[in-house]
Amino acid sequence: MTASSPILGVLGGMGPLATADFMRKLVEATPAARDQDHMPVFVHSVPQIPDRSESFLAGSDAPWPFLLCGLRILEAAGASAIAIPCNTAHLWHARLAAATGLEVLHIGHATSAAVTSHPAAFKRVGLMATSATIMGRIYQDALCAAGVDVIVPSAHDQVELVTAGIAAVKAGDLASAAPRLREAAAHLVERGAQGVILGCTELPLVLHGDASDVPLFDTTHLLVKACISWWSKSKAAQRRSETFSQ
Amino acid sequence: MTASSPILGVLGGMGPLATADFMRKLVEATPAARDQDHMPVFVHSVPQIPDRSESFLAGSDAPWPFLLCGLRILEAAGASAIAIPCNTAHLWHARLAAATGLEVLHIGHATSAAVTSHPAAFKRVGLMATSATIMGRIYQDALCAAGVDVIVPSAHDQVELVTAGIAAVKAGDLASAAPRLREAAAHLVERGAQGVILGCTELPLVLHGDASDVPLFDTTHLLVKACISWWSKSKAAQRRSETFSQ
Repeated sequence: MTASSPILGVLGGMGPLATADFMRKLVEATPAARDQDHMPVFVHSVPQIPDRSESFLAGSDAPWPFLLCGLRILEAAGASAIAIPCNTAHLWHARLAAATGLEVLHIGHATSAAVTSHPAAFKRVGLMATSATIMGRIYQDALCAAGVDVIVPSAHDQVELVTAGIAAVKAGDLASAAPRLREAAAHLVERGAQGVILGCTELPLVLHGDASDVPLFDTTHLLVKACISWWSKSKAAQRRSETFSQ
Repeated sequence: MTASSPILGVLGGMGPLATADFMRKLVEATPAARDQDHMPVFVHSVPQIPDRSESFLAGSDAPWPFLLCGLRILEAAGASAIAIPCNTAHLWHARLAAATGLEVLHIGHATSAAVTSHPAAFKRVGLMATSATIMGRIYQDALCAAGVDVIVPSAHDQVELVTAGIAAVKAGDLASAAPRLREAAAHLVERGAQGVILGCTELPLVLHGDASDVPLFDTTHLLVKACISWWSKSKAAQRRSETFSQ
């Protein structure tokens, strides 16, 4: 008596406001005339997981057992695929994907594809993200291979504007986060960025389309689009399978 | 490796946008300086459940097995209490509460308490809700017993403004829902309502504090407050238990 359609499992809570933002954007982006047309979703939003960026930078694997436990709970609940609305957690994506038979969608792949297929044919984009996402090269290698140069904030901006801005969002202080994050984006544009990747799901909570003169890539929204694409394909495959078995 | 704190189970998806709104309000209302200070939540958002209002009005129990299945999934995921961000689903609240050992918070009790303890000492309030919530008397009996008269929209307004407005929200058309719902609220105020209960979690998505001259009771927000109160008490009880066992 659950949904007959494939169910999306969301490994969330990193942070919790970003997960709520993901859920709202998922509903808003789904073509639906009534409740029943929407995607069924299980959300594991357990923010007690150790900070992903701090752990990675300290060489600690502390988040891993929390991620794995969340994955197992989503599997047991009946999820058919996994989405993780947190860029930094994707440093553990390959291990999560190897640990399950379910498809684990990748926020970085979805975003990189949107960047390289953008009609503006970018030569250089800026990347705003946690220090771990930057150091873990979630974005740079794929984009470099596609001929797009990726620049990141200066060391000063990374600490004083981006890291501090992300922390402010996590503390619920969006008002103080906004000017810091807009300034960091502006500095990237001054250095030649023709677009900016909001490579942390806290960032689109305060940086909207009008926050910069160049296109901003909302990674939460791009993950949502990947989820809707997965759901459409899965439903079609399910229908074919049901037709075949009749 | 999940949260050491009690986990809230959310029986959601009724509708999915209301569940996303509940999650955002829960995060915003929780005092927190960082991710880890937030409430761990497991959300079952499966909108394929049959329409609660239509089923109740048709004398059908079709939603029940879906509700029970969702409850069991939340129990298995480790939830310590259940919240249901849908007023109409509370027509099945007593059966859900009887079917589980977990506390099932009640959106109507939380809201009725807020109405009766309001400093304005209301004599009469308006109730905007699905027809099933109105006919199922989720609000009227408790408030009547407390000396508060509850009035509901006219038959015309219920169909043309409230039911149509709720359906528009569920279809993602908030812009066309807003004027209908504001008009229904205004008619209640003209008839003497000193406050209006937004007794359907789709309503606070379009009716905000400035939508009426009288106080509007956001049942989503009041359920959030009940959840935070439950969580504070549960954490305190857990700490006492841990201290005692050392």
